[in-house]
Amino acid sequence: MLSFQLHAKMRVEPQNWWVGMQNNTLQIMLHDQGIAKQQWQLASYSGVSLKSVTKTDNPNYAFLNIEINPIAKPGVLVFSSKSGEHFEYQLHARKVNSSKRNGFDSSDTIYLINPDRFANGDSSNDTVKGMLEAANPIERGGRHGGDIQGVINALPYLQKLGVTQLWLTPPLENDMPSYSYHGYAITDFYTIDPRMGSNELYRELSVKAKQHGIGIVMDLVLNHFGSEHEWMTDKPTSDWINFNGEFAKGKHATSHARQTIQDPHASEFDKRQFSDGWFVATMPDLNQRQPLLANYLIQNAIWWIEYADLSGIRVDTYSYSDKAFLADWTKAIMTEYPAFNIVGEEWTTNPAIASYWQAGKVNNDGYTSSLPSVMDFSLQESLIQALNEEESWNTGWVKVYQSIANDFLYPNPDNLLVFADNHDMSRVYTQLKQDLAKTKMAMTMLLTTRGIAQMYYGTEVLLDNTGSNDHGDIRIDFPGGFKGQPSNAFTGQGLSDEQHDMQQTITTLLNFRKQSPAIAQGKLVHFSPEAGIYSYARISEQQTLLVFLNKNTAAKNWSLAYLQEVIGQHKQAVSLFTEQQINITDTVTLAPMSATVLIIE
Amino acid sequence: MLSFQLHAKMRVEPQNWWVGMQNNTLQIMLHDQGIAKQQWQLASYSGVSLKSVTKTDNPNYAFLNIEINPIAKPGVLVFSSKSGEHFEYQLHARKVNSSKRNGFDSSDTIYLINPDRFANGDSSNDTVKGMLEAANPIERGGRHGGDIQGVINALPYLQKLGVTQLWLTPPLENDMPSYSYHGYAITDFYTIDPRMGSNELYRELSVKAKQHGIGIVMDLVLNHFGSEHEWMTDKPTSDWINFNGEFAKGKHATSHARQTIQDPHASEFDKRQFSDGWFVATMPDLNQRQPLLANYLIQNAIWWIEYADLSGIRVDTYSYSDKAFLADWTKAIMTEYPAFNIVGEEWTTNPAIASYWQAGKVNNDGYTSSLPSVMDFSLQESLIQALNEEESWNTGWVKVYQSIANDFLYPNPDNLLVFADNHDMSRVYTQLKQDLAKTKMAMTMLLTTRGIAQMYYGTEVLLDNTGSNDHGDIRIDFPGGFKGQPSNAFTGQGLSDEQHDMQQTITTLLNFRKQSPAIAQGKLVHFSPEAGIYSYARISEQQTLLVFLNKNTAAKNWSLAYLQEVIGQHKQAVSLFTEQQINITDTVTLAPMSATVLIIE
Repeated sequence: MLSFQLHAKMRVEPQNWWVGMQNNTLQIMLHDQGIAKQQWQLASYSGVSLKSVTKTDNPNYAFLNIEINPIAKPGVLVFSSKSGEHFEYQLHARKVNSSKRNGFDSSDTIYLINPDRFANGDSSNDTVKGMLEAANPIERGGRHGGDIQGVINALPYLQKLGVTQLWLTPPLENDMPSYSYHGYAITDFYTIDPRMGSNELYRELSVKAKQHGIGIVMDLVLNHFGSEHEWMTDKPTSDWINFNGEFAKGKHATSHARQTIQDPHASEFDKRQFSDGWFVATMPDLNQRQPLLANYLIQNAIWWIEYADLSGIRVDTYSYSDKAFLADWTKAIMTEYPAFNIVGEEWTTNPAIASYWQAGKVNNDGYTSSLPSVMDFSLQESLIQALNEEESWNTGWVKVYQSIANDFLYPNPDNLLVFADNHDMSRVYTQLKQDLAKTKMAMTMLLTTRGIAQMYYGTEVLLDNTGSNDHGDIRIDFPGGFKGQPSNAFTGQGLSDEQHDMQQTITTLLNFRKQSPAIAQGKLVHFSPEAGIYSYARISEQQTLLVFLNKNTAAKNWSLAYLQEVIGQHKQAVSLFTEQQINITDTVTLAPMSATVLIIE
Repeated sequence: MLSFQLHAKMRVEPQNWWVGMQNNTLQIMLHDQGIAKQQWQLASYSGVSLKSVTKTDNPNYAFLNIEINPIAKPGVLVFSSKSGEHFEYQLHARKVNSSKRNGFDSSDTIYLINPDRFANGDSSNDTVKGMLEAANPIERGGRHGGDIQGVINALPYLQKLGVTQLWLTPPLENDMPSYSYHGYAITDFYTIDPRMGSNELYRELSVKAKQHGIGIVMDLVLNHFGSEHEWMTDKPTSDWINFNGEFAKGKHATSHARQTIQDPHASEFDKRQFSDGWFVATMPDLNQRQPLLANYLIQNAIWWIEYADLSGIRVDTYSYSDKAFLADWTKAIMTEYPAFNIVGEEWTTNPAIASYWQAGKVNNDGYTSSLPSVMDFSLQESLIQALNEEESWNTGWVKVYQSIANDFLYPNPDNLLVFADNHDMSRVYTQLKQDLAKTKMAMTMLLTTRGIAQMYYGTEVLLDNTGSNDHGDIRIDFPGGFKGQPSNAFTGQGLSDEQHDMQQTITTLLNFRKQSPAIAQGKLVHFSPEAGIYSYARISEQQTLLVFLNKNTAAKNWSLAYLQEVIGQHKQAVSLFTEQQINITDTVTLAPMSATVLIIE
């Protein structure tokens, strides 16, 4: 059992910085009893100067405003106060080409993991002395002991499966009395939760993942934080937390009415209720209109990108934060890393609302976002409906067809995150009523249509929460990740035939996806569903894919005449799943309840 | 019984024109055996010249291209051919300020009538000799004998009810063997169906309606026509009708997939199937890409506006026509009549698709429309759901709130047509399961929210099609309009208490609406539904309305604190329905299952 390190007396955030950043300013937050009284000076350092100190209505905080010019070299800054206080501050060199890093893109498959539930690689940190919540693996809302070491150990498995990016739900400290395993009640924005590992281990994960061709996407929370954070008892400013830092149930809860952002008829009352309302009592709502907080959150994100060499960020409850702040936050990051990627969680099935946030969107109110990617909740819902409903003119596949047809609302549909499920909803196999054939169709569609694919951990072995919608049961222990489990997805031991089948299908799709130019850059052309079959093509210069999703319980002899505009003069294709040569000049046979992927090269 | 006038040997369309139009060109279509061989000249007429004659691949048609300069005076043009053919052509003076006419707007209530089913004012034209379908009042899909004279007779009733505009489903000739009563299978674009009356009687309706403060909105069909039209046997050009004028079932039917218009992934196959596909076999699809046809349809609309002094046009199956043509057609009309109004039927509940067509919308593909108004099918669906569903975070009133919140997609939400039902769907009272209280709430909402209100005939007396979705049963005979009916909505005789109640409620709402500045120009501010109550304000300089729609089965003592931003310093209001003075400084009592409208002045 590890022992939890209490913070040093004076908190200094960020704990270090880098030379050679695009933005040459840095604001260091100091937190200590009566710290605002100190008068700070910086020991002479070439290219670095202390421009000013910002004080607030709380004497326990001070913000040092630093300028770091391009000539500055890595080294140690020494700050001292007239009354004898003193601290050292590291300026590191950046990784080569750090600013040119590529974010995840439409060639990727992002594997989403709840690290507490994936694999326990280090049982010594299951419970950490001094932290509020201990391990309790039999409690569905408790901590099960999964950790970053578990993910590191799984990297060979993930590479073989075909994964190219990992999104871990927030690994930052959540020192909360209960339900801390999910990670969204952050009590320290700069420290990995000791029960997950350490900052150093998180960085090691990133280094090792890269060796397996896998990038790391960090899950950040800008809207709220954990109520056990020291900010609750010692607010940096009186306006740091919305609704004066108080939560009266039924009065200060967010309305979730995200439509108020664009609604020309929205009342001021409703706008405030949505944006300033708290998520829950244990997750106080941050006031990002406060410029010191805004800057804190911007620097925090950049710190993690540099420190852990990230290839992307996922932002929780995106639109719940102040929208002007979100414009600034995304712009600051994308200015620093122009080829980076960030995906915002805007949980709405209305693409007119979701697309508001994507970079490049021309909005009626003039709002300009720099967020590259949003999640496609519309397609998620439509896909489940398509597979569960009977076919008719307005049910079944037409839902998917209509959802994708709404892409005209997005400036960049290829940068949408597509998914069948995630950690906040029933698993796809559950939503599809434990139907393997449907689950294979769903995943084939998601992994071959436009967008960046995201897959929830364990989908490859049909993890299931039938009978319970409890989040703890959705975020079920991955087989093989914990002691005493009857089966092991890493080795295949104890898996059912259906699980093996699914795992093989996903392996085929992900490994094909990794190297297919048609998936990475191909234009999507889709066709109105007919007779229970939805079909589309992905067309790149080097490769064309034809995808047929046949919901019929009988095989179909399917004429390809309507595909003339995409098939052209081609006469042969290869089936991805059967590896057979297929003649495509007339008709093809589509097996019942199946996905067929034909590759034309 | 009238006798049907066969057309004169040579058909000349339009049959006349006017001097002083904005557009100084006119194209006269001549149709006669071998007419293309004739060489035409125009007898000298100051300011008018025959510029050219356009011939086609059909020798039975010729198009005379005329220029009418501003100096031209009303009179008779005389055309003659070298081989001795000869016809006279009237140029009329326009009504004073014809070009400045105002179209219907958000102060209006448009009353929608199926004239065959509203009132039989002239039994002598129920059956017309020589026409294919005779009257058959007991057949639900047959002709019941209603006519324009019946509407003229009802004008005092409609004025008292508070109606300000009348939309009649197409009164143009539908000389079809069956189902001709609905009017959408037009066989002559320039002639009122003799079973409805005559061109002269339609013009008389317009004159008399104006005397009752009522405008006439004509229902035009641009997409298709009736298969008994002479064009089917003698096409003006070989490309006049889509899919070569042939209809093979399952092959040439429209897909109704309107999303193909904007979908960046739509296949060429699907685009053609939607736009060129036929509505049904008896309604061949017009190819508006043919410029002679496009011009024919533009002139036809302008002819009816001038001839019948219209205050608006409703366009059937709007997006099914060629979109470039629709841009030209709307632009031509709105250039001629800048303050006119036209509403397009785009039957989709997706406002991102509907808003594409509204004038002023900045579309991604650069498409520019001049159509002022579209129908709000999203609000129609949402309103019914709101009233039929139990309240929850995502059911009930929130559907209406979300639908209206999407107004950011429209350049002009005040110019949306709002309605609870129309002639193509079950009646509102039926959709609301014969619940009077809900029907009153629905109509109060529609008549007080933003937009132009449309009400289907007979809603005021709770007409009902419970048990049948057949269009003939939706378009039921209006009580009092036909012989032998047990009740009479015009006189009130035989109506039930519920019908009287509804008729009184509608009369109150429509007559208030006619003169309320808050309804005509007021800004809408609405509030997130709470506890089964949806509330909003309409705010103009002179007047503020507060509307509360209470779905609870118990009365509510309702705090108005959240309305501070719209109530301001006001302390008193008057209730529209009870005429009582109400204190609005603290709480109000909302009766169970009711709409409350408070007027602040």
